[in-house]
Amino acid sequence: MSISVKVRGCIERSSWIRKMFEEGAQLRAIHGEENVFDFTLGNPSVEPPEAFHRELRRLAENPEPGMHRYMNNAGYETTRAAVAEVLSEKSPHPVGAEHVVMTCGAGGALNVALKTMLNPGEEVIILTPYFVEYKFYVDNHGGVTREVWTDRETFQPDIDAVEKAIGANTRAIIINSPNNPTGVVYPAATLQALGEMLERKQKELDRTIYVISDEPYARISYEEQVPGIFRHVKNVLIVTSHSKDLALPGERIGYLAANPMMNEVELFMEGAVFCNRVLGFVNAPALMQRLVTGLQRASVDIEEYRAKRDLLYDNLTAMGFAMVRPEGGFYLFPKSPLADDLEFVRLAQKHNILLVPGTGFGAPGFFRIAYCIDAAIIHRSLPAWERLAEEVGL
Amino acid sequence: MSISVKVRGCIERSSWIRKMFEEGAQLRAIHGEENVFDFTLGNPSVEPPEAFHRELRRLAENPEPGMHRYMNNAGYETTRAAVAEVLSEKSPHPVGAEHVVMTCGAGGALNVALKTMLNPGEEVIILTPYFVEYKFYVDNHGGVTREVWTDRETFQPDIDAVEKAIGANTRAIIINSPNNPTGVVYPAATLQALGEMLERKQKELDRTIYVISDEPYARISYEEQVPGIFRHVKNVLIVTSHSKDLALPGERIGYLAANPMMNEVELFMEGAVFCNRVLGFVNAPALMQRLVTGLQRASVDIEEYRAKRDLLYDNLTAMGFAMVRPEGGFYLFPKSPLADDLEFVRLAQKHNILLVPGTGFGAPGFFRIAYCIDAAIIHRSLPAWERLAEEVGL
Repeated sequence: MSISVKVRGCIERSSWIRKMFEEGAQLRAIHGEENVFDFTLGNPSVEPPEAFHRELRRLAENPEPGMHRYMNNAGYETTRAAVAEVLSEKSPHPVGAEHVVMTCGAGGALNVALKTMLNPGEEVIILTPYFVEYKFYVDNHGGVTREVWTDRETFQPDIDAVEKAIGANTRAIIINSPNNPTGVVYPAATLQALGEMLERKQKELDRTIYVISDEPYARISYEEQVPGIFRHVKNVLIVTSHSKDLALPGERIGYLAANPMMNEVELFMEGAVFCNRVLGFVNAPALMQRLVTGLQRASVDIEEYRAKRDLLYDNLTAMGFAMVRPEGGFYLFPKSPLADDLEFVRLAQKHNILLVPGTGFGAPGFFRIAYCIDAAIIHRSLPAWERLAEEVGL
Repeated sequence: MSISVKVRGCIERSSWIRKMFEEGAQLRAIHGEENVFDFTLGNPSVEPPEAFHRELRRLAENPEPGMHRYMNNAGYETTRAAVAEVLSEKSPHPVGAEHVVMTCGAGGALNVALKTMLNPGEEVIILTPYFVEYKFYVDNHGGVTREVWTDRETFQPDIDAVEKAIGANTRAIIINSPNNPTGVVYPAATLQALGEMLERKQKELDRTIYVISDEPYARISYEEQVPGIFRHVKNVLIVTSHSKDLALPGERIGYLAANPMMNEVELFMEGAVFCNRVLGFVNAPALMQRLVTGLQRASVDIEEYRAKRDLLYDNLTAMGFAMVRPEGGFYLFPKSPLADDLEFVRLAQKHNILLVPGTGFGAPGFFRIAYCIDAAIIHRSLPAWERLAEEVGL
């Protein structure tokens, strides 16, 4: 065999995704691009804010000597200071540039965080339904994931269930709010309860247990500001990217930031800078670091997303689909009207509606809708949804 | 303990590098930036070619919708096709876009290649003196490095020694030509001998043994074109970046390309695309992919580097330093006049000359000079080199 046994296994197990993808491409070829309603990808259709384009033009027209060279593996001091300044507003203790490492997106930040903390066989708790990449990221660094279901009606973390899952081998818990795939936002009281439970468990077990707070959707929140987690949890890292708030997913720009009050925070940051280097990221892309420095308060227009959420939520619930009303992100995670979510997704495909089954998030019996697509497509899809609802007897 | 035991160990073992770095910063503070001669970093002082700046202005002024979104994890088809077209010119079999994955630099490409191929405990041969990151990259994916010395006079690969090191657990050998730290270029005959030996060993052991050809300096070659390795080795991957040829090290743009004749090449590329995704790179930075598409034949002016090589080589050998005359890259790797290269490097520091000891490349008794710095600094450093030579009795 010429490739890794584990990688070959992963490819084989994910062949159904490729098959779905190929069937989608076939549908487009048959019915035309505009008649296929693709709700599968978290790839924002919006463009970056005008401030981004302006800054890109300014840098292109006024190149500074050395602006494409290596810098410190942590990233530019000015960029990290700009990130820290904004984070400080939601932190009881001032965040400094030294608490921030610029990374190749949140995917890079998660891998850096996990490599920095994990010893072989240590456990990382993930909350079901979960973003499937978490399992690969933990495995990359010799860790083991432990899945804990959120409340099945609200998708809020079940703090008692998390507490029961914590043992002598637990190193971290990954949370994600606003959540992919459910769109729910965790309120301050929940984060506070999580922080208090973890304080107790860490004392009991005499070990550091980190919260890794994956926050790429933090600025896409409809009801109120997403609470600042540094206020509620001590040993916590924020990992995030500008993929959603500045609509730059292809540019791989994000960061990892540690709570200044974290245990041995200086050592952790030294480890993170080292891991950013030896994982082959080396540093976050230089030009993008410069570009986002002045855009730490900028964001795409979330009213567009809110309108799309309302359009789909209102129409689909009226048709009889059952789902939690999401307060952020750009996903809906309804219950599958058929017990088998894969069967339901296949049925939807016959109506030219492309969806991801809940099974892909460890949550059979649900399906995910990504509504970060053109509103026109959503409008055009409604009659197909009607027919689908009818076919499954809603 | 709150970080990984292994990472903590790495940080502690590399503390001498940080110490050297801090001492260098101190020297600058005392003597002034222009009086410290820093030969430690492979961070090109040249700027990207004008064609790069032109293309950046064009893209900034004419943004295309969706140009910052996710694309296929392998990268843009057009970018990969442009890379493949240039690679095909030095390949006996046409290279296609399907044989190329765009990556976050050569560091990204190496990690993707290693994760795709390695099972736990499998061995990767590296040639001493070696680029120290190779050891971390192999370890990231559960592999074990096996060091084989090159010829100690010429720094050319010792094919017999490599053959003796190959066993039932060998999965790959990493080569790097033009070489960091020695500057030597491997001639076609050597690559041919390596390829033939590997054909024999692979049959004998009934397993695939890859060559990973790390080629970021391929366009910085003074005597003749670096030979195309697809002509000489069957199971070979090229990993490279535009860090040196387009002077874009901070932008993290490079690629992995497989010989179209490689065993199960389609499966390998599928694995590589998967690994690019799950390692958290996701895709190479989008804007940089667009920028390098039209620059596959562009390069910084290598005559500048040649002049610097000649200036240093001629002057230092005249002073009595012994070294191989490098045919590429931007490094010199002289013998240390003192048996202890760390002691010699400390002595050089007293003359405000900053160097990296050979020990950092697994090769005690040598030291590395990176001459990718301003010619004016090199000129100003010559009297200091004279004094250093005198002090060590050359």
